[in-house]
Formats: sequence, C-alpha cells, structure tokens
Amino acid sequence: MSQFAPMPEPPYYAVIFANQASATPQGYAEMVQAMLDCAAEIPGYIGIESSGNTDGFAVTVSYWDSEEAIKTWRNHSKHQVAQKIGRDRWYDNFQLRVARVERQYDMKAHG
Amino acid sequence: MSQFAPMPEPPYYAVIFANQASATPQGYAEMVQAMLDCAAEIPGYIGIESSGNTDGFAVTVSYWDSEEAIKTWRNHSKHQVAQKIGRDRWYDNFQLRVARVERQYDMKAHG
Repeated sequence: MSQFAPMPEPPYYAVIFANQASATPQGYAEMVQAMLDCAAEIPGYIGIESSGNTDGFAVTVSYWDSEEAIKTWRNHSKHQVAQKIGRDRWYDNFQLRVARVERQYDMKAHG
Repeated sequence: MSQFAPMPEPPYYAVIFANQASATPQGYAEMVQAMLDCAAEIPGYIGIESSGNTDGFAVTVSYWDSEEAIKTWRNHSKHQVAQKIGRDRWYDNFQLRVARVERQYDMKAHG
C-alpha cells in the first residue's frame, strides 16, 4: 500500500506532528494503528504521511479538507484518550502545527 | 541536538516533502547532509524536521519565513543539482506541498 497521501486540489489543511517518543512506549504501535483507523472515518479526512527514526523521533502529517474536520478529529473521544496517554507516558516532547496547503507537485510534474 | 525546528510566531511556511527512496541510493546520506548545511545558510530558513523509515519512505518538513525564501532555496545551484539527481536516481516517487503555518503548539501548551 502506498505511504503517500492523496493530493486533492488546494487549498486544504495539513497537521504536522513531530514527536520524540520515550524509550519504551508499551502499547504505542497498537494505539497509533487504532488512531489511524479512527481518523480515516472522520468526514474530511484526506490521508496521512508518516515516518519514524529508530531513535523514536517521528514526523507525521495528516491532511484534512477543512479546519472543521481537524477540530472533529481533535475532539474525538478515542483520540482524546490517546492524547492524554501520549502526554503522560509516550512522548518526551512534541510539536504540532496546522498549515494551509497552497500548492503542490509530485515527481511526475515539474514544480 | 534537538530534531525539532524552532516555532516562530505564525504565519510562516512549511515545505512538506514525502519521498520513497530507491533501493540503494549511493551517496544519498552525504547529499542530504550537504543540502541541510546549504539550506541553513539561506536567509529566511527557520529549521527542519525529518524522519525516515527503514524501507526508505521519509517525511521531511522544512520551515521558512516567506515564499521568497523557499524560492531562493529551490533555485539554489547546489540544490538544483541534487534535485536532478534525486529525480534521476534516488527517488522512486515523491510528493511536495507548500503550506502556510497558521497555528501551533507544543507539549507544554494546551492546544
């Protein structure tokens, strides 16, 4: 399965989430997968691109139709539980930015 | 050294670069480092957050003060050489998006 997200016509929104996971995040992989499955059911979800270093630093970008979709996801009950566990246990640090995608291209196109 | 980028007051710009590297990209790590060093010298460069999976899929987000800074970086001579080699040899695929950062928070703040 492609690890790239779809590219609908801009504008749309990106949530850029960089995190440093703590040393041994038990249950983390399972929770990430559960969150991915859950996000995909939110209306306005476009897709996700995510990668992680072996030292626990990871960059995940999720894409959304609108600010409203992001808000829906942020306030989703299962996601709120995961956010709390993340802050309490899994993350040494994170940074989150919400950005409006304005233009884009891929390898086939000249940018 | 922190793998997180600085968070100046929005708005500023993010270049979200997702790529799938080909199987054995010789010289790739060296070129990436050279490009990071080079980007850091461009006026308007803020920082970078990057991670990569062991299968070669990577997400790199660079941050810039302005669209002009992004354009300067895109047209930089050494970067242009790397872009060409990337297309010809290193990347099976990539997607690039330019986005305007509108809001942000980190682990210490409530978002």
